[in-house]
Amino acid sequence: MPSRSDITYFGAGPAALPTDVLETASQALVDFQGTGLGIAEHSHRSAIATKILDEAKADLASYLDVPEDYDILFMQGGGTGQFSSVVYNLVGAWVTRKQQEAEKAGADEAKVEADLKKQVDERELQLDYIVTGGWSLKAYQEACRLLGPEHVNLVADARKINPDKKFGKIPEESTWNLSKSPAMVYYCDNETVDGVEFPKFPQALAPKADGTGPIVVADMSSNILSRRIPVKNFSLIFFGAQKNLGSTGVTVVIVKKSLLPPVCPQPSPNLLRKLGLPIGPIVLSYETIAKNNSLYNTLSIFDVYIAGLVLKKLLATFPDKVDGQEAVADKKAKLIYEALESQPDVYQIVPAPACRSRMNICFRVIKGGNMDAAEKSFLEKSKQQNLEGLKGHRSVGGIRASNYNAIPLEGAEKLATFIKQFAKG
Amino acid sequence: MPSRSDITYFGAGPAALPTDVLETASQALVDFQGTGLGIAEHSHRSAIATKILDEAKADLASYLDVPEDYDILFMQGGGTGQFSSVVYNLVGAWVTRKQQEAEKAGADEAKVEADLKKQVDERELQLDYIVTGGWSLKAYQEACRLLGPEHVNLVADARKINPDKKFGKIPEESTWNLSKSPAMVYYCDNETVDGVEFPKFPQALAPKADGTGPIVVADMSSNILSRRIPVKNFSLIFFGAQKNLGSTGVTVVIVKKSLLPPVCPQPSPNLLRKLGLPIGPIVLSYETIAKNNSLYNTLSIFDVYIAGLVLKKLLATFPDKVDGQEAVADKKAKLIYEALESQPDVYQIVPAPACRSRMNICFRVIKGGNMDAAEKSFLEKSKQQNLEGLKGHRSVGGIRASNYNAIPLEGAEKLATFIKQFAKG
Repeated sequence: MPSRSDITYFGAGPAALPTDVLETASQALVDFQGTGLGIAEHSHRSAIATKILDEAKADLASYLDVPEDYDILFMQGGGTGQFSSVVYNLVGAWVTRKQQEAEKAGADEAKVEADLKKQVDERELQLDYIVTGGWSLKAYQEACRLLGPEHVNLVADARKINPDKKFGKIPEESTWNLSKSPAMVYYCDNETVDGVEFPKFPQALAPKADGTGPIVVADMSSNILSRRIPVKNFSLIFFGAQKNLGSTGVTVVIVKKSLLPPVCPQPSPNLLRKLGLPIGPIVLSYETIAKNNSLYNTLSIFDVYIAGLVLKKLLATFPDKVDGQEAVADKKAKLIYEALESQPDVYQIVPAPACRSRMNICFRVIKGGNMDAAEKSFLEKSKQQNLEGLKGHRSVGGIRASNYNAIPLEGAEKLATFIKQFAKG
Repeated sequence: MPSRSDITYFGAGPAALPTDVLETASQALVDFQGTGLGIAEHSHRSAIATKILDEAKADLASYLDVPEDYDILFMQGGGTGQFSSVVYNLVGAWVTRKQQEAEKAGADEAKVEADLKKQVDERELQLDYIVTGGWSLKAYQEACRLLGPEHVNLVADARKINPDKKFGKIPEESTWNLSKSPAMVYYCDNETVDGVEFPKFPQALAPKADGTGPIVVADMSSNILSRRIPVKNFSLIFFGAQKNLGSTGVTVVIVKKSLLPPVCPQPSPNLLRKLGLPIGPIVLSYETIAKNNSLYNTLSIFDVYIAGLVLKKLLATFPDKVDGQEAVADKKAKLIYEALESQPDVYQIVPAPACRSRMNICFRVIKGGNMDAAEKSFLEKSKQQNLEGLKGHRSVGGIRASNYNAIPLEGAEKLATFIKQFAKG
């Protein structure tokens, strides 16, 4: 039977975790630091849990240079939970802003409500979505379901610019149909299923010289911690932990404090009802989670602990923090893409060169003309060499090598070597 | 430093887990059954994960005798997430039933919608809540927030029958103000904070001879698996795993299939919007979770695995399944309550005798007249004897001994002995 050190696991998430992190967590599960009680048993309201939570937040902020005017929340429900969360909360924030503006202009409560109702009915409330893959598409669909499609604006749909109507490109920013003043602009920084990653922060969403700009929300579930991000350009960034940060069971939200009380309290449920706008569950309320330091209800401290161990390892490994990891991630991705490109008769990389993901490397095996047979053979032979988890997402097929932070350089080298060997064999 | 075997942990949740379960899980975290990959790393869509999920469901159904016409869902978000979930989903089910009735009577779509709107506006839609402690109160408040208080009926409020306006009694069923045909009747079978447990299924909610009856929903987060429950009397039972089943990170829903498609598909979001009713997040949709065998989005297979180990241990320990555990739970609770009752000048049990929880034993230490000082001393001295986690919930104070399944008989004996010793000392 193979041991952990034999195997390189390229699964898309839950991803592999560093062995030393798992070994420490494994011991803590039975007995945390000699307390006679495991880390999953200690109360989430104990001093032990608070310390773990606060350290994980501080280490994340340090590693990513998260500015002081952002809060970090630990939530449940995964990235898919956040597809809904951002809609409920950002629509609420839009209502509050409109309310505050009207009150400032001297309007009374009845007039504020009537004006708001008019604005909603006239569809001034818009959420903007840039759809570049399966996950941003799901987020867009959830917004349509919760809010009604008339309030959701499809800024760009990457399928439309591909002759085969599949994902694989990012539409030119000049073609983006942004709303005038959307309640948010949403995009997915790295599409796990389709292997499409934004090469950098979109210019069209950049703040103006005076600091104002669109309210940008990004799903970074599958590329967080792998490169420097201009946090200050975002109002909100979310990510499930189970790819680059830790284990399934905790979802992280980095949110600008100006979206939270006291600056921006959520509107009353009564007002939302009057306006015909959706009311989210309390567990998805950023306001509630922030007020309670992520402990409104029971949080899996075990999962936060694992994330904390991963962050401490990253900080110990890279004195220059995320920049150090970014260099390694780039190098690993380059190795694999170059191996694929060196054999153009055997492999076809799915996404366009300009937006190829460093994290999820998606390709087809076209050797011999029978793609199904060639890919079956690729998967079988790679497995024999202990290269695991390479099957593409069931919705798109093909091969996907998820090149997350826990894949060591040697793992990427092994895969690159195998890619070349298979082409010859 | 104390070892696991030295300590008896009476925390209210996350609760202690059996040491052998944690040891097995601890090994599986690093390498699951010689696969060279840990259980938190294996894909939630792998054959390994499916087997764990299906076995946990089958074992739970076997242990509790869950009838065939129920489905078992694993979800995220905890009991607090379910406070919202039941509202979204049961309101949806009410709409579908009304729609189906009207269609059966030959009404066209426009008439169906108009009639439904009238029924909602005239407040025929009612959710019934029996409030007997802090958790059912929170569930009631969430329903009011999501739906508007005009659609939420307070069947009974246990605080009103106590001279001190605190929880501690269950109002007589004859005084319950049930709606004529509520979309659900909700109660919390065991109130973790207040130590109040329903002694048995409420007669007022029992199905009639013809099998019809109210749609009963119960929160059993803190007493599930500890006694036999008449599952067929319920439309839905939910519980967070972190007390009697496993670790934080998974929430279980046992739901009657007649609340799910094909019998009862959820209404369209458009119809809900027209009716002014709330639309929940996709991750809290029972229909979506059921259709996808609990894998609509990434589920923590590690937490399901732990729950599965606990269930296998229970099934191996008790040939008569939950009845066997019930006898042990009763015995342990009796030991502790009798120790407290034997010293009436020192201890005051908080809830009334008829509804004292077997799981969360709440009492005050009145010795010497200075309750704060006496309780501080009780906590300090109990800690010296390695009896941990006895502090009451921050909202009510006092002492709480959570006597969950993982507390062995000897643990309850130790506590009973200490209770008597402390009284004398």
